[in-house]
Amino acid sequence: MTATRALGVCYYPEHWPEAMWPEDARRMTDMGIAFVRIGEFAWSRLEPARGRLEFDWLERAIDTLHDAGLKVVLGTPTATPPKWLVDEMPEMLPIDVEGHARGFGSRRHCCFSHEGYQRECVRIVTALAERFGTHDAVVGWQIDNEYACHDTARSWSAPALQGFRLWLAEKYGNIDRLNFAWGNVFWSMDYPDFHSVELPGLTPSEHNPAHRMDFYRYSSDQIARFNRLQVDVVRQLSPGRDVIHNFMGRTLTFDHFKVGSDLDISSWDCYPLGFLEDRLEVDDAWRQRFMRTGDPDLQAFHHDLYRATSKGRWWVMELQPGPVNWADHNPAPRDGMIRLWSWEAFAHGAEVVSYFRWRQAPFAQEQMHAGLLRPDSVEADGADAAKTMSEELARLDLPPTETAPVAIIFDYASSWAWETQPQGREFDYFRLIFDFYRGLRARGLSVDFLPPDTSDLSAYQMVIIPGLFAWNETLVTALRSYTGLVLAGPRTGSKTSSFSIPETMPPDLPAPIIDVTVSQVESLPANCPVPIAGADGTLKFWREFLEPGADCNVVVESQDGQPVLVRQGNFHYLGGWPDSALLARIINDLGQQAGLSLLALPDELRVRRDGAVTYAFNYGERAIDLETVGLSGTYLLGESTLKPSGVAIIEA
Amino acid sequence: MTATRALGVCYYPEHWPEAMWPEDARRMTDMGIAFVRIGEFAWSRLEPARGRLEFDWLERAIDTLHDAGLKVVLGTPTATPPKWLVDEMPEMLPIDVEGHARGFGSRRHCCFSHEGYQRECVRIVTALAERFGTHDAVVGWQIDNEYACHDTARSWSAPALQGFRLWLAEKYGNIDRLNFAWGNVFWSMDYPDFHSVELPGLTPSEHNPAHRMDFYRYSSDQIARFNRLQVDVVRQLSPGRDVIHNFMGRTLTFDHFKVGSDLDISSWDCYPLGFLEDRLEVDDAWRQRFMRTGDPDLQAFHHDLYRATSKGRWWVMELQPGPVNWADHNPAPRDGMIRLWSWEAFAHGAEVVSYFRWRQAPFAQEQMHAGLLRPDSVEADGADAAKTMSEELARLDLPPTETAPVAIIFDYASSWAWETQPQGREFDYFRLIFDFYRGLRARGLSVDFLPPDTSDLSAYQMVIIPGLFAWNETLVTALRSYTGLVLAGPRTGSKTSSFSIPETMPPDLPAPIIDVTVSQVESLPANCPVPIAGADGTLKFWREFLEPGADCNVVVESQDGQPVLVRQGNFHYLGGWPDSALLARIINDLGQQAGLSLLALPDELRVRRDGAVTYAFNYGERAIDLETVGLSGTYLLGESTLKPSGVAIIEA
Amino acid sequence: MTATRALGVCYYPEHWPEAMWPEDARRMTDMGIAFVRIGEFAWSRLEPARGRLEFDWLERAIDTLHDAGLKVVLGTPTATPPKWLVDEMPEMLPIDVEGHARGFGSRRHCCFSHEGYQRECVRIVTALAERFGTHDAVVGWQIDNEYACHDTARSWSAPALQGFRLWLAEKYGNIDRLNFAWGNVFWSMDYPDFHSVELPGLTPSEHNPAHRMDFYRYSSDQIARFNRLQVDVVRQLSPGRDVIHNFMGRTLTFDHFKVGSDLDISSWDCYPLGFLEDRLEVDDAWRQRFMRTGDPDLQAFHHDLYRATSKGRWWVMELQPGPVNWADHNPAPRDGMIRLWSWEAFAHGAEVVSYFRWRQAPFAQEQMHAGLLRPDSVEADGADAAKTMSEELARLDLPPTETAPVAIIFDYASSWAWETQPQGREFDYFRLIFDFYRGLRARGLSVDFLPPDTSDLSAYQMVIIPGLFAWNETLVTALRSYTGLVLAGPRTGSKTSSFSIPETMPPDLPAPIIDVTVSQVESLPANCPVPIAGADGTLKFWREFLEPGADCNVVVESQDGQPVLVRQGNFHYLGGWPDSALLARIINDLGQQAGLSLLALPDELRVRRDGAVTYAFNYGERAIDLETVGLSGTYLLGESTLKPSGVAIIEA
Repeated sequence: MTATRALGVCYYPEHWPEAMWPEDARRMTDMGIAFVRIGEFAWSRLEPARGRLEFDWLERAIDTLHDAGLKVVLGTPTATPPKWLVDEMPEMLPIDVEGHARGFGSRRHCCFSHEGYQRECVRIVTALAERFGTHDAVVGWQIDNEYACHDTARSWSAPALQGFRLWLAEKYGNIDRLNFAWGNVFWSMDYPDFHSVELPGLTPSEHNPAHRMDFYRYSSDQIARFNRLQVDVVRQLSPGRDVIHNFMGRTLTFDHFKVGSDLDISSWDCYPLGFLEDRLEVDDAWRQRFMRTGDPDLQAFHHDLYRATSKGRWWVMELQPGPVNWADHNPAPRDGMIRLWSWEAFAHGAEVVSYFRWRQAPFAQEQMHAGLLRPDSVEADGADAAKTMSEELARLDLPPTETAPVAIIFDYASSWAWETQPQGREFDYFRLIFDFYRGLRARGLSVDFLPPDTSDLSAYQMVIIPGLFAWNETLVTALRSYTGLVLAGPRTGSKTSSFSIPETMPPDLPAPIIDVTVSQVESLPANCPVPIAGADGTLKFWREFLEPGADCNVVVESQDGQPVLVRQGNFHYLGGWPDSALLARIINDLGQQAGLSLLALPDELRVRRDGAVTYAFNYGERAIDLETVGLSGTYLLGESTLKPSGVAIIEA
Repeated sequence: MTATRALGVCYYPEHWPEAMWPEDARRMTDMGIAFVRIGEFAWSRLEPARGRLEFDWLERAIDTLHDAGLKVVLGTPTATPPKWLVDEMPEMLPIDVEGHARGFGSRRHCCFSHEGYQRECVRIVTALAERFGTHDAVVGWQIDNEYACHDTARSWSAPALQGFRLWLAEKYGNIDRLNFAWGNVFWSMDYPDFHSVELPGLTPSEHNPAHRMDFYRYSSDQIARFNRLQVDVVRQLSPGRDVIHNFMGRTLTFDHFKVGSDLDISSWDCYPLGFLEDRLEVDDAWRQRFMRTGDPDLQAFHHDLYRATSKGRWWVMELQPGPVNWADHNPAPRDGMIRLWSWEAFAHGAEVVSYFRWRQAPFAQEQMHAGLLRPDSVEADGADAAKTMSEELARLDLPPTETAPVAIIFDYASSWAWETQPQGREFDYFRLIFDFYRGLRARGLSVDFLPPDTSDLSAYQMVIIPGLFAWNETLVTALRSYTGLVLAGPRTGSKTSSFSIPETMPPDLPAPIIDVTVSQVESLPANCPVPIAGADGTLKFWREFLEPGADCNVVVESQDGQPVLVRQGNFHYLGGWPDSALLARIINDLGQQAGLSLLALPDELRVRRDGAVTYAFNYGERAIDLETVGLSGTYLLGESTLKPSGVAIIEA
Repeated sequence: MTATRALGVCYYPEHWPEAMWPEDARRMTDMGIAFVRIGEFAWSRLEPARGRLEFDWLERAIDTLHDAGLKVVLGTPTATPPKWLVDEMPEMLPIDVEGHARGFGSRRHCCFSHEGYQRECVRIVTALAERFGTHDAVVGWQIDNEYACHDTARSWSAPALQGFRLWLAEKYGNIDRLNFAWGNVFWSMDYPDFHSVELPGLTPSEHNPAHRMDFYRYSSDQIARFNRLQVDVVRQLSPGRDVIHNFMGRTLTFDHFKVGSDLDISSWDCYPLGFLEDRLEVDDAWRQRFMRTGDPDLQAFHHDLYRATSKGRWWVMELQPGPVNWADHNPAPRDGMIRLWSWEAFAHGAEVVSYFRWRQAPFAQEQMHAGLLRPDSVEADGADAAKTMSEELARLDLPPTETAPVAIIFDYASSWAWETQPQGREFDYFRLIFDFYRGLRARGLSVDFLPPDTSDLSAYQMVIIPGLFAWNETLVTALRSYTGLVLAGPRTGSKTSSFSIPETMPPDLPAPIIDVTVSQVESLPANCPVPIAGADGTLKFWREFLEPGADCNVVVESQDGQPVLVRQGNFHYLGGWPDSALLARIINDLGQQAGLSLLALPDELRVRRDGAVTYAFNYGERAIDLETVGLSGTYLLGESTLKPSGVAIIEA
């Protein structure tokens, strides 16, 4: 079986004279591009004033692309409501925690809880889907754009307050249950009724974490609900088309599994250099080392995550084709990296890799963001990469992606929990999960992410569950019958879903699974780690004091004699945040027990092992001999000496 | 004579099923606890709706404690007004400098200037005092909780504005006097009348310091006034009980001497690890070194300070019993430290040391704050410490605390002055005083703090007056007749009480006391200190250029030839902020002249010498031989080899 | 021809008892002071209530100064509108970007767009000019004080919004042209009409840069317009007097050329130590090294800049006479530096150097700011400097300043452009220009600044144009006929005036001038510079990828083989931000080609070569032998061994 793999590009016909469109379309086709995403910010040109729909230009644009043999993904323009709409209903603006409206003039100036805005979105999407839903060229829809970007998942607006109160009323039924669940007896925080509950805004001291947690859940639910409104319209009026959203990187303020479950395809916007510069806690030397390549694990992490959110089908909707405009520093990618990033996405199972954008816009906010073409239509570096990719894709038949040997449970709610209650400044859920992910990748292991309510783990040889704040019955049931190795902790099972410490104490598991109690925890500054006994490695940031039961054995101890890793049967509990040395040791030991095939990869070499095919990527500055790390087979692409920015595809 | 020394604990019966109360009380008694503080956040359970007083549960709780032989300190719940009250009068919320209300949902959501809130507080306290004021178990009252915590001393609310204008009218009589006192001619800041005076809110450039200073005085006065309202009720309705407030650490936004003078007992909430992490300017190495012990001088500093604020009687109301939840990092205390901290408080004269809290709450904001018991009622580390303490206290008869040989004048208004006008980024009053305090302690000297209007200094061999912004007549009169050594400066006497430079120039003292003029000052970054001539040591942060008169001698000079320390008779003026080396030299020289018994203690060893008894505390990681630092006598507790976290009590 | 050079002082008679005025005046004269600036903050004393004008005291003050032979510069008091006026029209307050009014209580609490405030300013200035406009002592007027200080150039007020809309309507004529010019099609930002345009306030993501740019232009224009209102009054009612404004250092939020063109004299407020501490990006070692002297180039930079803004005539209106009160740290100047700073100003052509202030005020905001006298009227260090200066000035006949050999184009709009779109965190226009300026000065070159619309460059041997965001026709025409050497870039010509990338791509110059294309740019963190081939030096912060045309030669290349400096005829384009080593090499090479006389000066030695006269200044801590750097001639002042803080004047 051969997987479909194709290239795409993001295009804004409204930005360019109509006379340029046919030539643009021709050049796209020549470059090997198959998919074009258009329309997702065009509301003011589709409806310049209320009710004045001007769709003809869009039809001509779609026709032009169609004539050139291109397939169109049509974006709904709801991330950029036009000025006339905002002036009609200014209370649709999102309100920040200080009470300031975040106004018109950029994008995402809309509160997900505002019903008028929701109504208007359904109206414009309906009109678009009626007109274009069955157009032959339209093969997919992108709903909105980058939900929650620019910190817009949460709004402290009047509609949000009203919505939150209703959501709470529905969840708790009566106010006593809310007061009990939140522990409002503490500090006399009892609410007399649902109508008196406030949003967690400015208060003298910190909020009740249960209150914040429910507000974050509500805010996430609003996005899922908003997305569904549009999905329903599109599915009805545009049958047979793929419904897609383009998620951002390291955005955790809403549950992507929930949104993704309403989609056909999850896609994401992949900016390796911008993300390394602005969105990752690494030291200066690391940032400098990978400045022009991106972090070696961050792209793969998101590829694997978004492969999970819509059950396997996923795209890269936007791939960085050169310097971007929005990070603190915006260097140019190293030669070959655009191709490497493209191949890495396909290696992790992407159906389409789409570059952002066709031609660099000379005006407005993103004028310093590279495109495949320069503003003067001359080809930029990305164009070469696209051409090379289309040639290589055409040449190679590669199988679809398979299940990985290792799974990590990924839970958006846990990120809200530790955002609410880090307890130590560094305790961040993404950061914790990413450390485990990097540790697995350093051993050459391929990883699947799973949602927290996974009911069947049997496909995996090893399951990793760090930082899961609260268990759910489905997962616990799955664990009871699971026979592979499990590694849980730190903080896993340390709360109830109501954000309390469980009555049976963390990790809140029945003794048959593991009989251990976390009696106390501590958070630690970076310069005060806890050394491990008899080996390299420390616990950093976080340490738990464990009391193992009779059937629970201590596997790793700290130098001060406390249990660090304990084991009962196939279940391991880790009482702290491991540094890379300790994590390497644990993964090595458990991996060997689980019968996994382990490699020892240098930082700059990463592989994706997918069934019989191994993909290798060199993020480093020196050529690497792949045989020295144990890789061999038939080279479908590349060779055993993997140059900087090099890609190799090896069949066993 | 033997001092009473006892243990206490903070307890929240409303957080637990009533069925657990008797067992809790029994276990407290078994642990050697004598005092229980309750009730201070319970308003919403004492009055769930306006006028619906539900005091029965509290009576049953008090009775239960009483039955177990425990004494109760009853807190007034005014730091947590319930939601129904805030909804009745939302204008009671404090307003921050940007004009935002700091709302319901945590605690201290109340503006001290709001008369409706004051009235409601008097009402609920009256009802409580009528019901429980003569209950046999109730031996004391805690008024409110941690005034000014969470930056709530100052409010930019409409009631505060109104109150400030009246306060100014009363202080100045007519607006011309205010305009003159503040120097409002500068920048045309004249006010036409008191009704036009604003709070020092957002302005393009900085405020007039005299304006800020009066606002800070007003804000402090409001707290003293608020406290007195409740004290008056309690004294009338609950005669013979001790009236207490629990101050926080390093909180200087109101005058604790003023509040303390209305109390019987000052208490404070002592969190050694949290304070070191969040509230002290020390370098990373120092923070790391004492991460699990707390700073060796910070607890003692507050013990000595709060011993002064209510004329000798003081408690620790809350002592950290394990990791807390609110600092940037929250490590676990080292073994033995809870006992050490307990003993150190008693060494400085505490009557009661009370642990916060009995059982860790599994819910709400402080669920990660340790208690003596874990949430599942299993004993945590603090329980052991309490048991040890109660045994040792029972075994030892120790005399009451005596007057120390050295006094430091401590002035809250000076902290507001230098907060208003640091002139150099690091100039902070607490930090300055703490440096002097640490310097004295490093020489084994015990210290009393004195209020700025002290009229009699004769009990002391040496008096230290750093950074006192303005003299008062009482203190100057006391100095005229004082024959011990005085060390004043830097910045002492550099302002009038109206925040002007004195006509006679700083330090603004008559020539018979000392004839020296500060002709110019400069503030310095940390990396540009002024080296001292002929010895180690520098001036850091702050340097003054001194012009000594004929009878004033230069004792220490800078390498660039400027006088640094000058002396006239018993009076020394120090023209700068000494680093530890210079300060050690000065304290050594002056101490020898004053006939003080000086030790040379390493950083991690601290002693409290109190009459014939010496208490020694090892904050370090290695055992210390106390004989090598010159300590000997009969060991009432411990031995001459003082282990880490060790306590020794030695009788001469 | 001999230039007039004189001393001045800033004086506030309203701060002192009238009885002190005659003695003050006498002492000023004795000190050699000729000019006194007064009155600029006195509105509340000139008009204590609406319409109650009290000018008599000011007349007595002027008369007193006049009687002592002093000349008066009278300030208009419009930077400090009194409380009664603000209470009459509170909507005159400036509003910050978050919507908060910046209220009364300091200064500059006024929005330049508010018409009522403008009217009131015209009224009070008219009254002053009617009363004092023809007073014999009044030789000049200072309009307002330090425009834009305390970040007050821009206001998000209702009047500003209204004014901005009208300004846009006037500029663009119809809304379609605005939408097109700004590229509002991007993100559906089209405005339906001018009345719907918003100020660039709080938005979820960034603003359209064209929108911000126009708002910054509008804000700058408002200041020029405001200034002109007062200038018109003064010119009419006080004929023959010099009209002056006192600009601040490193203030770029309005176009000083525009304001300066309405003045007779530009003056500036020169605080060398405060500016080094707070307003310059230098490393700690540099800040420490020059802590007591100020940066060796920063004063000269502003002298040269403000010599340009009013076509040659300029003063220092306020010179630091000792420690100031407003920087993070406020050290005392090193001995001799006040004289050095005074002489340096004269060396760059100042007519008057005026010290701020006469006597240190003991009250209000600036009580820690030194004066020539201490608060107790004793002479402070500045007084000595003034006396020395007046003696030396009287002794020396020095010619007026001449045209420099090198010019730098300085463009305020470019600073707004890169503030709006730095693209890399460090890209700041002032910082870039200052680097070039320092590089020229290190070679002993004197510099003139020129406005961006300069039409004739022929007086200069070399013209430097870094970072000019957009060309104007006048300058391009001048360049076409210019035969000296030109050095442009980085980012020069990279935008149109509408903030778009030019159609012909940067640097947007016709091929006859230079045929090169910037195909791509990148911004770089400080630790990732781009090394130059074959020599020391790097590009830091910013690098451009250049495509030179056939007639364009590569002069400098990077180690990775990219052109860095290209040349076509006399025109050089530099594709990046040079570090000091690369810049030194370029200036050396170009300077030699241009036939300039180059020196090689150590960091701490700076010279001003002005025709036949060379002024030398030693900012260092060691004496420097001027002959070793190639300076010789007749010493009018000083000698060849230039001591620390030393000044030498050498005639060829």
